[in-house]
Amino acid sequence: MATRFDSRAPDFEARFSAFLTTKREVSEDVDQTVRAIIEDVRRRGDAALADYTRRFDRLDFASVPMLVTAEEVDAAIDSVAPEVLGALKVAAVRIEAHHSRQRPKDDIYEDAMGVGLGSRWTAIEAVGLYVPGGTASYPSSVLMNAIPARVAGVERLVMVVPASEGKLNPAVLAAARLAGVTEIYRIGGAQAVAALAYGTETIAPVAKIVGPGNAYVAAAKRQVFGTVGIDMIAGPSEVLVIADGENDPDWLAADLLAQAEHDTGAQSILMTDDAALADAVEQSVERQLKSLPRGETAAASWRDFGAIVLLDSLQDAPPLANRIAAEHLELAIADPDSMVDKIRNAGAIFLGRHTPEVIGDYVGGSNHVLPTARSARFSSGLGTLDFMKRTSLLRLTPDTLRDLGPAAIALARAEGLEAHARSVAIRLNLGEAG
Amino acid sequence: MATRFDSRAPDFEARFSAFLTTKREVSEDVDQTVRAIIEDVRRRGDAALADYTRRFDRLDFASVPMLVTAEEVDAAIDSVAPEVLGALKVAAVRIEAHHSRQRPKDDIYEDAMGVGLGSRWTAIEAVGLYVPGGTASYPSSVLMNAIPARVAGVERLVMVVPASEGKLNPAVLAAARLAGVTEIYRIGGAQAVAALAYGTETIAPVAKIVGPGNAYVAAAKRQVFGTVGIDMIAGPSEVLVIADGENDPDWLAADLLAQAEHDTGAQSILMTDDAALADAVEQSVERQLKSLPRGETAAASWRDFGAIVLLDSLQDAPPLANRIAAEHLELAIADPDSMVDKIRNAGAIFLGRHTPEVIGDYVGGSNHVLPTARSARFSSGLGTLDFMKRTSLLRLTPDTLRDLGPAAIALARAEGLEAHARSVAIRLNLGEAG
Repeated sequence: MATRFDSRAPDFEARFSAFLTTKREVSEDVDQTVRAIIEDVRRRGDAALADYTRRFDRLDFASVPMLVTAEEVDAAIDSVAPEVLGALKVAAVRIEAHHSRQRPKDDIYEDAMGVGLGSRWTAIEAVGLYVPGGTASYPSSVLMNAIPARVAGVERLVMVVPASEGKLNPAVLAAARLAGVTEIYRIGGAQAVAALAYGTETIAPVAKIVGPGNAYVAAAKRQVFGTVGIDMIAGPSEVLVIADGENDPDWLAADLLAQAEHDTGAQSILMTDDAALADAVEQSVERQLKSLPRGETAAASWRDFGAIVLLDSLQDAPPLANRIAAEHLELAIADPDSMVDKIRNAGAIFLGRHTPEVIGDYVGGSNHVLPTARSARFSSGLGTLDFMKRTSLLRLTPDTLRDLGPAAIALARAEGLEAHARSVAIRLNLGEAG
Repeated sequence: MATRFDSRAPDFEARFSAFLTTKREVSEDVDQTVRAIIEDVRRRGDAALADYTRRFDRLDFASVPMLVTAEEVDAAIDSVAPEVLGALKVAAVRIEAHHSRQRPKDDIYEDAMGVGLGSRWTAIEAVGLYVPGGTASYPSSVLMNAIPARVAGVERLVMVVPASEGKLNPAVLAAARLAGVTEIYRIGGAQAVAALAYGTETIAPVAKIVGPGNAYVAAAKRQVFGTVGIDMIAGPSEVLVIADGENDPDWLAADLLAQAEHDTGAQSILMTDDAALADAVEQSVERQLKSLPRGETAAASWRDFGAIVLLDSLQDAPPLANRIAAEHLELAIADPDSMVDKIRNAGAIFLGRHTPEVIGDYVGGSNHVLPTARSARFSSGLGTLDFMKRTSLLRLTPDTLRDLGPAAIALARAEGLEAHARSVAIRLNLGEAG
């Protein structure tokens, strides 16, 4: 049974505040181990990669090479079920179309004073994409991480994926091809992150690393940050469903469970003004849990972190939703447009009863890499901008320098930076010291 | 004397590669100390702030309150020299105009299939701005960090600044007023970062913290990251000047010194195809150093990290500049337009001999918070987008769900996520299990 809240209860605010700050993951301290692995890869390169891969993935590069060949990818594509390959293509086309609209425009202009200014966007040259192995090796995640990079104009898109005993998920390789990945290596863990950041004899270094991973991968990304860019470190997934009484409880229960089946640390929250609906959803969750292959995971998530918040009125929902700042927010209400403008903090909003969050996971076109753990208060989902950077341009003439220079000199002197002042003054024939 | 490189020398590549990876800062390990301070502020709130402020800033909140009042700011403004106040106003107006152009547009649309999609931008609700105390308390930095936040639409803009023995820089308070800061507290160090992230009885928490600081502040920002957003952790400043032979060596020397005077870890690099100019610049640097108030700092920076790279041809400059990925890049050449498009990695580019980098520090209008330590390969300077976040919107109808649903179901099943498949199938009357 999930936790119940009633917004009319006198202890609601205290309980809800505590609920908001509950941690849903155990942070493993693997920093020392990871630091040693990174050092070793920096020092010994490919040889270190071979050793760790033999040890952790039971894979010997003497028999199966590190680089995945184009022929292997061809063969993998042939082995993927046609309906899955077709679905991947639908998803890829839609993700590309949506992310193409996110491409920023340069803005180069001259202001009224005659000063030339500009914001110019360029793609990051090379990006690494971490893909987990085993059951967490999701082809949809390859599309979501790689396509925005390709749309941005990234030339080298390097995927690393651990291949336990040499095995790779064919759908992941198919997704890599569809997404435009240019190199694939059979490596994983902190050693793969180190190879991407610092390079080895075989792998040229990249400038940014994205993609999900376990505690070792997350720690490695944090440690190489600065040398390369990284994406956000994602926590367990979460959904908030705001529902009026006119919903089919089975639909809502299925949505809550879709989130809960990800991870025992996932979180599903139902917010409604209809107590009967709340009860019906809870009963449906219990019933549906029984027939789910990942029912144990979903049950643990629902029991430990699931919540039902009963409201006096749905008008109370937006302020609470803004505090939760959910990764995914479903507005399962008759008129979602009346509420969406009141929601400020959410990774993605799904409008109306016929927009289950799962569509956004796969084929909506928007990105499924979204801010978790309340970070939608200050950050965005993955997008095309994450694979580009902006350079400022500035152009003065002797005249505009004469107009603007004195103010720069005054501020430099106020800050005690005389060489700054001189660098302007000397051009205005005000002498070395201005 | 700075390090000399000659691109024609046989050992150039090896030496240049080593130069690129030279660290210019000592990383102090203050993590344990900072962790304890943050814990204490979380537990004891204002009382902890009072204790640390008494100890580190020799300031007792019993005599001077934590909150800086509007009257104090009024008085500070009256005490600032008119030419400095005027210069701050020139800078503020120009920064606001430039950053207003960076405001993103929402993109809400329906695609050919009838699916509603959208990218909607909203401002972060509350932002904290750290301002260092003492000589590093720069009013220009207040403008550069706060104005983009105000332009983005941030409502609460909370400044913290340590006031050693109660003293604050009046120009910093004036800049805060001009920039639209809404609250100012006389606190600093890790304790101020903790107060912004977690809140105390007096200070409501913010969602993001920006601004420069010492090793303790940087460590505190890293530790609270996740609870709140943070900006990049800036390293020592750097400039790369690409110059042809037609330059006045005194101008270039002044530009190199303007960077070097910031910090002994700052870096100034001259790249030219004219050996005589290189010698003349070096001589001018030595001569100008003697008359600089911060000459000792600049001399140490120039000696330890300064460099002159002699090229066979200026056509060799862009690939090397892209590897350096300098925070600031001056193109002191006759036709900067012929080179600017070949430069991909740079925080800001200053075009032509009459655009000294210092103009960008103060009054150009673009931001002076820029990526250091080669991070321009993957990140951008501070801008309006850093104070906003994007929410994805998705809207399906029964018809579009019927069109897209099967592909989502296929991918969910391929990923072993049956509850995901069900959440779609149940809406298409394909039954609970699809």
